Amino acid sequence: MKMDRKLSVNDADHLVLGGVDAVGLAQKYGTPLYVMEEDTIRAAMRAYRDSIDRFYDGKGLICYASKAFSCKEMYRIAKSEGLGADVVSGGELYTALSVGFPMENVCFHGNNKSDDEIRMALENRVGRIVVDNIEELGRISVLADELDMIQPIMFRIKPGIDAHTHNFIMTGQIDSKFGFALETGEAMAAVKQAIENPSVRLVGVHCHIGSQIHEVTPFVKAAEVMVQFMGDVKKETGYEIEELNLGGGYGIRYTDEDDPVPYAEYMEAVSGAIHKKAEEVGIRVPFILMEPGRSIVGEAGTTLYTVGSVKQIPGIRTYVSIDGGMGDNPRYILYQSKYDFLLANKAGAPADTVVTVAGKCCESGDLLGENVPLAKAEAGDIMAVLSTGAYNYSMASNYNRNPVPPVVMVQDGSDRLIVRGQTYEDLCHNDI
Amino acid sequence: MKMDRKLSVNDADHLVLGGVDAVGLAQKYGTPLYVMEEDTIRAAMRAYRDSIDRFYDGKGLICYASKAFSCKEMYRIAKSEGLGADVVSGGELYTALSVGFPMENVCFHGNNKSDDEIRMALENRVGRIVVDNIEELGRISVLADELDMIQPIMFRIKPGIDAHTHNFIMTGQIDSKFGFALETGEAMAAVKQAIENPSVRLVGVHCHIGSQIHEVTPFVKAAEVMVQFMGDVKKETGYEIEELNLGGGYGIRYTDEDDPVPYAEYMEAVSGAIHKKAEEVGIRVPFILMEPGRSIVGEAGTTLYTVGSVKQIPGIRTYVSIDGGMGDNPRYILYQSKYDFLLANKAGAPADTVVTVAGKCCESGDLLGENVPLAKAEAGDIMAVLSTGAYNYSMASNYNRNPVPPVVMVQDGSDRLIVRGQTYEDLCHNDI
Repeated sequence: MKMDRKLSVNDADHLVLGGVDAVGLAQKYGTPLYVMEEDTIRAAMRAYRDSIDRFYDGKGLICYASKAFSCKEMYRIAKSEGLGADVVSGGELYTALSVGFPMENVCFHGNNKSDDEIRMALENRVGRIVVDNIEELGRISVLADELDMIQPIMFRIKPGIDAHTHNFIMTGQIDSKFGFALETGEAMAAVKQAIENPSVRLVGVHCHIGSQIHEVTPFVKAAEVMVQFMGDVKKETGYEIEELNLGGGYGIRYTDEDDPVPYAEYMEAVSGAIHKKAEEVGIRVPFILMEPGRSIVGEAGTTLYTVGSVKQIPGIRTYVSIDGGMGDNPRYILYQSKYDFLLANKAGAPADTVVTVAGKCCESGDLLGENVPLAKAEAGDIMAVLSTGAYNYSMASNYNRNPVPPVVMVQDGSDRLIVRGQTYEDLCHNDI
Repeated sequence: MKMDRKLSVNDADHLVLGGVDAVGLAQKYGTPLYVMEEDTIRAAMRAYRDSIDRFYDGKGLICYASKAFSCKEMYRIAKSEGLGADVVSGGELYTALSVGFPMENVCFHGNNKSDDEIRMALENRVGRIVVDNIEELGRISVLADELDMIQPIMFRIKPGIDAHTHNFIMTGQIDSKFGFALETGEAMAAVKQAIENPSVRLVGVHCHIGSQIHEVTPFVKAAEVMVQFMGDVKKETGYEIEELNLGGGYGIRYTDEDDPVPYAEYMEAVSGAIHKKAEEVGIRVPFILMEPGRSIVGEAGTTLYTVGSVKQIPGIRTYVSIDGGMGDNPRYILYQSKYDFLLANKAGAPADTVVTVAGKCCESGDLLGENVPLAKAEAGDIMAVLSTGAYNYSMASNYNRNPVPPVVMVQDGSDRLIVRGQTYEDLCHNDI
C-alpha cells in the first residue's frame, strides 16, 4: 500500500483491527461488516477532553455528535469517557435514554423539532436545547409552561463564516436552513426575547460552520464572531451569556489527500482567540462546548466486504463487485467521497491495479470508488474500506431490501457485537 | 396551482387521494406519511398487461420491478393483477415468498448475487435468474448440480444504447457494472458456454438501457440490437433463444418538465421493431418480458408532511421546514430530482410564493426542492409532495435516527395501513 496511514498486518498478511484479524472477523460475523476500533474512539474522546482541561482549565464539555454513529454502545462509551452528547432527534434521545445517559449533558439540536420531540426533551430534563428559530422558542416556552419548568437553551447562530469544504455540508453562511442570522439583527432580537421569557433560561450561543474542515482559520474566525456577539449582548442588555458551543466540523483523514490538523492545534488557536476576544469585549471566558462526531468515530471504522465478480472491460475499466455498497455506505453516491481500499487477506500486497469498486445494488451509481488503487482482486477476497466509522451505519438504508450489516467493536484482540445485523424477518417486521 | 396534473380537491379545499381527504390521513396516521393510490397502481399494471395482449398476442409477462417499492402488499397486488416480479436481492425474494408470490414468474437480478441468494432462488424454483457475469454462471451451475436441478436463466446484455437521462442512472453502455458486452464477443461466448452447460437452461436475454427515459427511440434501438443478437446466436449455434426481456426505464411525470410517452406508444413502436427484426434475422418472435417499476408506482405515491418553521431570509430565500426529508426521500440530495409541492389543506390556493423545502435532518443538503412554487405556508400546514411512490420508501434510511414513516394505501374513499411506521423501539431493536 502507498498509504501513509499506519496499518497493522499480521504474519498471515491479514489486516488487523483492534488486535483482531480482519479476515477472521469476516468469517465469524459474515460480510458486509462494520468494524469499530474502541481504542481509537476513546483516544479521540480523551484528546478532546484533555484539550478542554489544557486550554480552558477544564471549563467545558465535549458532546459527542451522535448522528455520526448512533447506537446504544456509543452513548455508553461517551458516558464512560465523561462526554456529553449532541442529539438531533427523538430517536437519538430515546437511544441515549435507554442506556441511562446523563441528560444534563445532552444538547438537543434540529432545525425543525416536533412538539413531541421538544416535550420528550423537556420531560427528561435535557441540559440544553439548541433553539433554531423564533417559532421554536415559542413552542418550547409553551411546553415548558405546561410542565412548570424553566428550560435551559442555547441559540444556534449563523456566524457568516464560509468554511472551505464540500458545498453540501457548508452551514455557517446566512443562506442556511439552520439558525439565526447575525447581520440582520435576527440573533440579537431573539436573545432579547429569550431574556424576557420566564420559561427559558438562555445559557449559551452555538455555531457550526461546516463539516470535514481542514483549516484552523474558519474556526478561529467563527469563535471571534461569537464572542463579539456575546460582548454585544452584554453591552446592549447587560445580560452575560455563560456558554459558547463551537459545534463540530473537524476534518479527518479519509485518504492521503486529507491533511487534518491535530485537535490540539485547533483548540490552542481557538482558545487563544476566545480568551483575547473575551477580554477585549469585557466578558468572562465562556464555558466551552464542542460537538465532534466524525473526528471521534470516522477513522475508527472499517467496513469489510467479500469480493464477488471482477469484471474487466478492456480499455475501459475493471469493476470489482462487493457484497454491499450504497446501502451501507451512501457517501460516495451522495458526495463522491473518497476512501482507501485494500484487500484484508492480502494486506501487504502492492496496490498495483486500478479498479472501480461496485456495490451490489441494482443501480449504476452504486459505486464506492472509481479508479482507485488495489491489489489484484479475486472472488472471495475480503475488501476493507477504511475510515467508514462516521455517516455509514447512521446513513444506511434498506435499498434493494438488503439488510443493514452488523457492527462489531474490537479492542485489544477481542471483538464483540454491538449492533446485530438485520435479518430478512426484520425487513418485513412492519409489513402488513 | 399551475400544474397540468389533475388533482382532486374537495369542498374544504383539501387535496383528495384515492377518494380520501389527505388532511384527514395526516391527522389519522401522523406525518410524515407515504400515501399510495391503489387504482393508479392497478391501472398502470393493466395498461402494461393489455399492451402485451395487444402487441404480442398475450405472449409475454410484465414483471413488476419491486426495488421501486417493495413490501408484502405490493407483491400481493402484482400477483392479483397477473404480473410477475423482478427481484434484486434475497430480501425482496423473501418478501415475495412470504405472501405466496408465484416463483415461476420471478426474475432474479443483481450484478453480485451471493451464493446464499442464488441457493435461495434455486430452492424456491425462481422462474428466471438473470445472469450478470460468467463467474456467476459457474456458481449457479455448481449450486444447481448440488440440488440436482436445471435452472432457467437469462443473460443480462449491454446493448450499447445510450439513453438520454441522468448520468447516474444510465446502464446500457459498455462501461457499466452490469452484464455482458455485445461488441467484445463476451455475450456470444457466454451464450455458447450456457448452451453446453447441462445445469442451466438458457431461456432468454435481457437488457436495461436506463431509467426515467422519455424517448421511444432508445427502446426501439435496444430491441433491434437484442433481436439481432438472438439471430446471430441462432446462426452461429443453431440455438434459438425463446425469450427477450426488455427491462424497464419508462419515464414518469415528476413535474411538468417531464413529458412521458404513453406506454402504448412505446409498446407499439418496440413491438413493430421486434416483429420486423425477428423476421429479418429468421427467428420466431420471442416471448417478451418487461420490468416496469417507477412507471407503476411512481405517480401513485404522495408524501404528506407537516410544515414546521418558515424561515424568511430577506433577499435570499424562504426555507419551509417539514418533518421529514432526505431520510424518507433521498432523491433530491442524490440526484437533484424535481418534485411538485402543494399544501394539502389549501389545495386550491395559488402557488404565489417561491420557497426552498428543507428537511429536518441536521445536514444542510437535506432539502426536497429549491426555489419551488408554493402557496403561502405556515406552521401546521400539511405539505404534499407528489410522485413519490418510487424510490422513496425503498431508499429510506434512519439517518439522524428518524423512524421510517408508515405507508397507507387508499382506494375508493377508504384507507388501510400497509406498512407500519417504525417506532423508537424498532430503531434500537438490534442494538446491544
